[in-house]
Amino acid sequence: MLLEKTIGAIGDLNQDAMQEARNRLDSLIKPPGSLGILEEMAVRLAGITGNPRPVVRGKSVIVMAGDHGVVEEGVSVAPREITAQMLPAFLAGTAGIGVLAKHAGAKVVVVDVGVAVPVDFPGVLQRKVKAGTGNIAAGPAMSREEAVKAIEVGIEVAGEEIDLGATLLATGDMGIGNTTPSSVILAAIGGFTAEEVAGRGTLINDRVMKLKIGAIKRALEINRPDPQDGLDVLSKVGGLEIAALAGVILGAAARRVPVLIDGFITSAAALIAFKLQPKARDYMIASHLSGEQGHRLMLELLGLTPVIHLNMRLGEGTGAVLTMHLVEAATKVIREMASFGEAGVSNLDEDKILK
Amino acid sequence: MLLEKTIGAIGDLNQDAMQEARNRLDSLIKPPGSLGILEEMAVRLAGITGNPRPVVRGKSVIVMAGDHGVVEEGVSVAPREITAQMLPAFLAGTAGIGVLAKHAGAKVVVVDVGVAVPVDFPGVLQRKVKAGTGNIAAGPAMSREEAVKAIEVGIEVAGEEIDLGATLLATGDMGIGNTTPSSVILAAIGGFTAEEVAGRGTLINDRVMKLKIGAIKRALEINRPDPQDGLDVLSKVGGLEIAALAGVILGAAARRVPVLIDGFITSAAALIAFKLQPKARDYMIASHLSGEQGHRLMLELLGLTPVIHLNMRLGEGTGAVLTMHLVEAATKVIREMASFGEAGVSNLDEDKILK
Repeated sequence: MLLEKTIGAIGDLNQDAMQEARNRLDSLIKPPGSLGILEEMAVRLAGITGNPRPVVRGKSVIVMAGDHGVVEEGVSVAPREITAQMLPAFLAGTAGIGVLAKHAGAKVVVVDVGVAVPVDFPGVLQRKVKAGTGNIAAGPAMSREEAVKAIEVGIEVAGEEIDLGATLLATGDMGIGNTTPSSVILAAIGGFTAEEVAGRGTLINDRVMKLKIGAIKRALEINRPDPQDGLDVLSKVGGLEIAALAGVILGAAARRVPVLIDGFITSAAALIAFKLQPKARDYMIASHLSGEQGHRLMLELLGLTPVIHLNMRLGEGTGAVLTMHLVEAATKVIREMASFGEAGVSNLDEDKILK
Repeated sequence: MLLEKTIGAIGDLNQDAMQEARNRLDSLIKPPGSLGILEEMAVRLAGITGNPRPVVRGKSVIVMAGDHGVVEEGVSVAPREITAQMLPAFLAGTAGIGVLAKHAGAKVVVVDVGVAVPVDFPGVLQRKVKAGTGNIAAGPAMSREEAVKAIEVGIEVAGEEIDLGATLLATGDMGIGNTTPSSVILAAIGGFTAEEVAGRGTLINDRVMKLKIGAIKRALEINRPDPQDGLDVLSKVGGLEIAALAGVILGAAARRVPVLIDGFITSAAALIAFKLQPKARDYMIASHLSGEQGHRLMLELLGLTPVIHLNMRLGEGTGAVLTMHLVEAATKVIREMASFGEAGVSNLDEDKILK
């Protein structure tokens, strides 16, 4: 019910606000378009919010955590218990996302939607749908009902943050082994082979890489996900945190709040959200290009352009929160720069400009 | 004298501090190297400053302004008087650099080193060496002595900012027509043709593009700059603000302060600084990849990797100040993240990791 309602509530961008934003940007003391993607961001923020001079106030990064049965296949260098162990460090500000979110002035929201063990650390939101997925190399990750429940956790948490004042959301993930289901989602939706989508994750060696490619192949063969059915792909070969992140994206879009996509895992969630409601794409802002090889393919499927190229592959939302500074810059350009007239600067020579 | 002394004072990176920084980064709760270029930045900042846990305190962007005789050739869409008209808006915070520097928490320093008209706006530093360059399509931009004087202005201003507490400098430019001398510098030093280095600048149309390519060709033919002699290239086909920016870079390097390179113009200055003292390169941090086509070639010659891809082509230091947030992020990663031991997180499985 909540999922259907949310999908139905996602509307079109506000074209009037976008045109007004474009007109203002073209009047500012700079050659037209010379702030590049920063100007495109400002226009899209206008379309998302309906405000031709958009502004960022509260910022939150929502980190969804879940475990993966597929680690049984030996596909990860990190032991499974790290999923739960990292969550306190996210909130204490001593993990990557903790440090970078603080730097960005963003609140960190950590949600247990599918960690294998009980997580009783104070501050972690308890929304567990299931204690880890099934091994996708041997069967489905979860039932269709569990996938819907996990998506709805994301919708709810996004809504709670927006109610508390967030005007810009970022997505983050924690889940040992989750590059494998993300690779399978990419292969299923994009029609790629296991070799094309499998990356080094957290620097696995050749031996582990072979195990990973084998697991991806078996996950596709055994589960046969239907690429036209986002819920089928998600429940058969996805993850609980991936489902919840798709929910965060859909929930943000339904409330007309921009949402930053992080790297490989959150982009897999974005692909699912896009399959469930193509209009959700208009509310997504790409952040960094991950060092994980399949990420570029995902962003191409989504039609999104990453703006930070740091070759990072940590996840947790680290690339997304680093991009908040640029989103805010876009809003300040349109709100604070003067026009040629206001600043008393001579106009450019129109008959020399490329049209 | 000041130039020679400065070039001689530029030393090697501190290898001990770099190794200590690498060791710390590898102990932090993340897969080794997973923060990519952010980790490389932290290591280089350690090498530059000698502090294995580097920190950014004061930040300044130094915007050098100068005019260009080559505008007589009709190579720019913007009338020459805009160079002087923009400077108040830089300081008032209503131009691109004003808005984005404020967003970055950076001080804006505006210097008239070669504007064609008197600039009496309060706050603009008066260090004019010459009221604009000669037309490089017809003769040299300036004398060798003037080039040295302009470089020394940059060294002095960088030193003043460092004395006032700046620990991170950014370079910015203002000079109508200055993509043309920058293109000629690239062609001279890199051995490229006029067609390979000429870009659309501030969106010039095909007619103006032909004029620009013709001017670049004549500048090379008439002046015959010696690619092995940075001062020869600079004085014959450069600009006063380009010279002063090379000085800022050299001055920062001599004081062991990291300096952010902006786009096409400041990278031309970086090429000159590199020719005068190859070690200066170690102190440069690349920021964005400009939409100006030759910028990628310049960064390749310098061996620098841009981290922000916003397709901007405004100059003024706008890409450089946007990158300050990332440089600070790098310092916070190394200073604030916990190690596996400190956080009580299980170690990774060493025999699965790619070595």
